[in-house]
Amino acid sequence: MKEVASYISKAEAFRAGSSSPVAVLEEYLATIEAREPAVKAFKAMAVERARKEAAASQARWRAGAPLSPIDGMPFGIKDILETADMPTGQGSPLWEGFETRRDCASVQALREAGALILGKTTTTEFASRPQFADTTNPHDPTRTPGGSSSGSCAAVGAGFVPLALGTQVVGSTLRPSSYCGVIGYKPSIGGFNRGGSYDYLSHSCTGLIGAALEDIWATAKALVERTGGDPGYSGVTGPAELAAARQPKTLLFLETDGWERATPGARAAFEAACAKLKAEGCEIITGKENDRITAMDAAIKDIAKLSDVILGWEGRWPLNGYARIDSGKLHPLALERIERNKSLTLDDYKAALETRSALRERYAAMIENADAVVTLAATGAAPKGLDSTGDPGFNIPASVLGVPALSLPLLEDEGLPLGLQLIGKVNEDAGLFAHGGWIIENFG
Amino acid sequence: MKEVASYISKAEAFRAGSSSPVAVLEEYLATIEAREPAVKAFKAMAVERARKEAAASQARWRAGAPLSPIDGMPFGIKDILETADMPTGQGSPLWEGFETRRDCASVQALREAGALILGKTTTTEFASRPQFADTTNPHDPTRTPGGSSSGSCAAVGAGFVPLALGTQVVGSTLRPSSYCGVIGYKPSIGGFNRGGSYDYLSHSCTGLIGAALEDIWATAKALVERTGGDPGYSGVTGPAELAAARQPKTLLFLETDGWERATPGARAAFEAACAKLKAEGCEIITGKENDRITAMDAAIKDIAKLSDVILGWEGRWPLNGYARIDSGKLHPLALERIERNKSLTLDDYKAALETRSALRERYAAMIENADAVVTLAATGAAPKGLDSTGDPGFNIPASVLGVPALSLPLLEDEGLPLGLQLIGKVNEDAGLFAHGGWIIENFG
Repeated sequence: MKEVASYISKAEAFRAGSSSPVAVLEEYLATIEAREPAVKAFKAMAVERARKEAAASQARWRAGAPLSPIDGMPFGIKDILETADMPTGQGSPLWEGFETRRDCASVQALREAGALILGKTTTTEFASRPQFADTTNPHDPTRTPGGSSSGSCAAVGAGFVPLALGTQVVGSTLRPSSYCGVIGYKPSIGGFNRGGSYDYLSHSCTGLIGAALEDIWATAKALVERTGGDPGYSGVTGPAELAAARQPKTLLFLETDGWERATPGARAAFEAACAKLKAEGCEIITGKENDRITAMDAAIKDIAKLSDVILGWEGRWPLNGYARIDSGKLHPLALERIERNKSLTLDDYKAALETRSALRERYAAMIENADAVVTLAATGAAPKGLDSTGDPGFNIPASVLGVPALSLPLLEDEGLPLGLQLIGKVNEDAGLFAHGGWIIENFG
Repeated sequence: MKEVASYISKAEAFRAGSSSPVAVLEEYLATIEAREPAVKAFKAMAVERARKEAAASQARWRAGAPLSPIDGMPFGIKDILETADMPTGQGSPLWEGFETRRDCASVQALREAGALILGKTTTTEFASRPQFADTTNPHDPTRTPGGSSSGSCAAVGAGFVPLALGTQVVGSTLRPSSYCGVIGYKPSIGGFNRGGSYDYLSHSCTGLIGAALEDIWATAKALVERTGGDPGYSGVTGPAELAAARQPKTLLFLETDGWERATPGARAAFEAACAKLKAEGCEIITGKENDRITAMDAAIKDIAKLSDVILGWEGRWPLNGYARIDSGKLHPLALERIERNKSLTLDDYKAALETRSALRERYAAMIENADAVVTLAATGAAPKGLDSTGDPGFNIPASVLGVPALSLPLLEDEGLPLGLQLIGKVNEDAGLFAHGGWIIENFG
């Protein structure tokens, strides 16, 4: 993992005047100027506003009065999230250029915290699978950055911004984070307020993508302190600063639906990582040693189908309505999805919700005496070509189960980035960060 | 209660050709033409589209192939709910004329069911308390129709539409229904999909306002079958047709925070209603006879404050962001609210959520062996003047507790309408309708 100085570690330099948010922004802008023509991570940018706000942030830091630890930090915002000063196009020709005239909850919180909203990043259509954008992987322009948070992960991977917002309902934050060599974080269910995010699915979340773990945690705190979690949820909880690195004593290996499709290189990289963890004194328990793990893997074998029923029913609105407005502007895959979901009934949905609840209970029982689950974040390196955003098999469980997950850019496949995934306990996001921090320190 | 032939009772006449959705629409339009200049219920109308769709509906009925029992039924839609063909202004000068370019979930469902979206009805600012609209009460133009679903309740009360959509997070459906002499229904929490409704509060809901109970139930079914409940909720469940009227054997009287402010006329009307119910063989249990009721009334004494903390925290987004865009276009009361809520913390909110959960458990235990709670729907007749939308004291409990409630237009105060409120058990909305039907039949 490439060592990256976190933004928040510059606080002293900002106060002393030896660095400034203005200087930091200009460095990022220079990288963008050099590489964005190939990466195409941004859908829209607000450079002049960001420069003006960086100057204001610089003044606050020098006066010793930053609005938050992330005051002046530049952000990329997935184009599914509303921004008052840039259109929100949802990766869809139907919504191209649409001005929502307001900020979503997370962007409102970021602005209140003094952060810079530098640009909107590309997304697949409606944060689902169809891809109209031509964003490339920052490590290999012939490959996909993954999706649906394509531009956010590509932007962080290319060094355009230290942090970006994404979303995840299947694998839209962790998988592209794995492909782009960055840290991806999906919170516990309800962790961040999704108000003003054009995704309305019951286990969806706003995800954070960054180069440094402490920047991600500082952003998480900046969000929840200002606009909370989803209505009715307490939101991500934990200390103001990133918890000290803590060695995981016991990790459980879940194969998930992904392992059987993992590449030989990915499997080998994962096994080597496990050997290193064991050598450091971490116990890694597999299904061979523990029936609960075997039973969990069996129970989530069809979790993709379960997720399809839940998201298929919930997605009838607004998708069916969009087809009513102009079906010609929807991707053929979206039209197929509408057709496929016509036969779903409220009873199918209710049954799927019950199955999901039961899986969540089973997972909680399995992980009770362990620290986290460890597995891959993707089946291998980013696939070649830009049409497919890759295989989400390793990502669906944490999404459906509503538990926090991190993709750590510690592995390689085909000489390209691959993420090690840690999956935690619901509402114990801070503990997952402590274990993630330890693993980064010992493997970075 | 004025007897109103339900829309769905006309099905046979529609099939036979002795009546038609076109004829029904024209009757409503004639009433609107005569009375709307005084009532001012509509913010926008789509008359020509409705006429065109009524003709299509008429053809479907005559071909024996209506899309649903509410095919051709004209609706008023609270102006907080997105409509593809009319602006959504949220009762706010800041959002005046804003085109969201799509239908909210409930409007999408209505269109799929063949219903006519006749117009957008006025709301208070952001469905909260400040009132910019000048809608009047259809029974007395010097009085408020109540709010926040001002136009929806006024429109049904004036005979402009058989049904309208509102929302309720405090008392925004039941209280104006009481003032306007119509039936108001708020569902169990999560009962209807609120996607595309500009209200994001955790115990908010989409409410239905109608002149006939069976039309309301038919609408409820049309909604949930097409776009479900809120994501993660099963939505309103029950039989396809309104359950047969069923006498409530045991009703519990909750004073709520409202009783001590109820007018002498309202109290007398309620007591007379209870005497009638008792004479018919319904047992009505009060706090005098049952400690659980006394304890519940004590526990909800400060429920308005609890609700203020929850909604105050949740409402920081988007309200604080709107002030950032143009605070001059917000009502002074909204600016006060922003100031007041600045001191709230995530910990205050978490504590309030825990209190709310405990109250919900307490309520479930209290009502377990009874059929429903009975109380007033408002403290009296609609107040004079248009500035205040009235006292929600009787409405907050069902909202915070997430349980279904009906306001039945059976009482009078000052010679004006007053609602009898029935509050039910969570996810047993169909049973509440059965009891409501019995009470209407025996008191109408």
